[in-house]
Parts: sequence; C-alpha cells; structure tokens
Amino acid sequence: MRPLMIESTQREQMIDITRAVEELLPKSALESGWVVVYCPHTTAGLTINENADPDVQRDMLHALRELIPQEFGFRHFEGNADAHLKASLMGSSLMAPIEDGRLALGRWQGLYLCEFDGPRQRTLRVDVLASASG
Amino acid sequence: MRPLMIESTQREQMIDITRAVEELLPKSALESGWVVVYCPHTTAGLTINENADPDVQRDMLHALRELIPQEFGFRHFEGNADAHLKASLMGSSLMAPIEDGRLALGRWQGLYLCEFDGPRQRTLRVDVLASASG
Amino acid sequence: MRPLMIESTQREQMIDITRAVEELLPKSALESGWVVVYCPHTTAGLTINENADPDVQRDMLHALRELIPQEFGFRHFEGNADAHLKASLMGSSLMAPIEDGRLALGRWQGLYLCEFDGPRQRTLRVDVLASASG
Repeated sequence: MRPLMIESTQREQMIDITRAVEELLPKSALESGWVVVYCPHTTAGLTINENADPDVQRDMLHALRELIPQEFGFRHFEGNADAHLKASLMGSSLMAPIEDGRLALGRWQGLYLCEFDGPRQRTLRVDVLASASG
Repeated sequence: MRPLMIESTQREQMIDITRAVEELLPKSALESGWVVVYCPHTTAGLTINENADPDVQRDMLHALRELIPQEFGFRHFEGNADAHLKASLMGSSLMAPIEDGRLALGRWQGLYLCEFDGPRQRTLRVDVLASASG
Repeated sequence: MRPLMIESTQREQMIDITRAVEELLPKSALESGWVVVYCPHTTAGLTINENADPDVQRDMLHALRELIPQEFGFRHFEGNADAHLKASLMGSSLMAPIEDGRLALGRWQGLYLCEFDGPRQRTLRVDVLASASG
C-alpha cells in the first residue's frame, strides 16, 4: 500500500491524480486486476469522471455548492459540514481496472481527488488487487 | 475481465443488469468472493437498488432530475454536465457478493446501469475477486 | 464472509459500525489488505465519515432530508422512495484498509451504516481481500 501526497490550493477543487496513481503501480505490475485508491480524510472524496473539458469539473463543484451551501442549518462547529456530506457523496475509495500492467480507464476518464475543505495536504493510499477470473 | 454491452434507449434510464452480470460469472466460479462491475463512461453510473417496484427506479431518476436540472448554471459545452455529476453520485463501479458460485444479493436488490445521457451503447467490464477470509 | 447484525432505532440514523467490523476481522488477519462491508438492503447505505463530533452525522442526515424530502413527487407506493435514493447516494458497499491485521482508517474516520427507513434490523456482510502489491 503506497502513499500518494496531494496538495490542494483552494477550498473546493477536483485534482486529476490519474498519472500519479499510474506511476505508483508496482513495477512487477499485475497483468490484470484493480487499483484501489483510498482517501483517509473526511472532507475530501474520490471520483472518476471526464478529464477532457475542465468545465466538467468546475460544473460538478458548482452544482454541489448550489445543492449543499456552506450554511444549510448545519450545527457542526467547524463550519465544514457541507464538505463532509460532499465527501460521502463522492465516496472515500475508488476502483479502476488494470490491463497489461497499466490503468485501463475509459477514453474520457480520469481519477480525481475531490477537495471540499482545502487548501490542505492530503495523503491517499494506493493498492492493487488481483483478478480471480483466471 | 469480461465486457458487457448494454444499449440504452432513453436519455435517463435505470437498466437492470443483474442477470447479464450473473451470466458472465466464470463457469469455474468462485465459491466465495466478489463481482466487480466497472463503467468506463463518464455520463453513466452503477448502483444497487430495489428491483421489485419499477416506480423506485422512476422515482430515483425523477428526484435526481429535480435536484440537478440540465440547466443549472453549467458551462460545459456539450450540455450534459448534469449527467456527469449524476454519474459520480451513483459511482463508476460496484461490488456484490458471490456465494456458492452465484450472486448473493439482498432479497430486493438488483444491479443497475444508470444511464444519464442516452440513448447510447455502453460497454461495462465484469470481473471477480477472491475472498481472503477463508 | 461474516454477518453483522445492526438494529436501528429511528427512521434516519448513522450508526458507527467501526468497532463491530474490526471485531469480525479474521483472527489470522491479513497483514495488509482490505475489508469490504456490504449492505444487502435497499433503504440503507454505507459510508465512511467523521466520528468525532456527532453533529457531523446529524448534519449529513439533515441535509439529505432537505434535499430529498419524503414527498417529492414520488410514486413508489411504500412511501420510502427518498430512502432508496439516499441509499444509492451513500452506496451499498465500502472498502477500508487493513494494516498489521487491523483497520487502518484515517484519524477522524469511522465506518457508518446509514439507515434511511428504520427502525429495522439490518444484516451486513463483512469480508476481506488480500493486497496483490507484495
């Protein structure tokens, strides 16, 4: 299980981690299997989405902010309850396929760290699982 | 890792893929483990939910459309930013248990491809992971 | 694959299952790998989020209820369509890392069953996957 350190620079940000994850794949990589990325933080999440037009990432953050404003009748004293919910909506882990020892994403896909309460330093964990399909 | 081709017929649609996934389980299936289904597309997602009353699927699509209309201050030029966000909310992969070589879902559960920008042809990937518990 | 029985006491409730999951890890636990928790129900989900301030869990349920009220133009005859959608938003499974044979969550993380249509008895399934990294 390898650490992947990412530094966010804004409160809300989608950071493309595709290449960084790929570089962490073990050299003796699996011919076929899965990469698992895990986020040990509670105000950031992980997702897979389009990496072509940056407006997609901007639009996703925008819509989440419209839906879940920072003030929403929240009681949590830190003022970041919105970030906790957004993190759970995206999820704390993701899986992506490995084929021929490399990430085998869809044509338009990238892996994203979704920062909802930055700027902060985040440390993800990257691991691989073997397929049992033979 | 096996491909599963699905053809959606509407812009938004929840398509039951339970039987199709089960038919792709390797013949020498795991006694106990997990199936992983992966969606390599960025405007469709995967989820597990009720497969008894079709109104549940209709209601889920309805509520997502109410929450995230196609016009929502989005900038993405393709006009489908709503679909990208909905896909991330559902998720790009799912896991379901295998017992005695068969899918072991809850009584009311089915596996769904959630189409948010159809009609299109989608190609999912299906794989199996071995349990390490035993 | 081991069962984990949880009894919810309210319609909506986030129940910390971290310790219960940890107690189910096999004694001959993996040095390094992943726990998978699966929810075979369609009106409850699973997530990982903050376990320090209980207001975070209250705020998450509150915001989901604001976004997706029980009456929302739904047709499902059981009157719990909101719960089905919330369950899919949280997800039906979660993965968390195991290191040195124990759960290795982030400092503020806990594992939660998200009940959206209780009170009910829920039976989760807990399994482990081995890392292939080495």
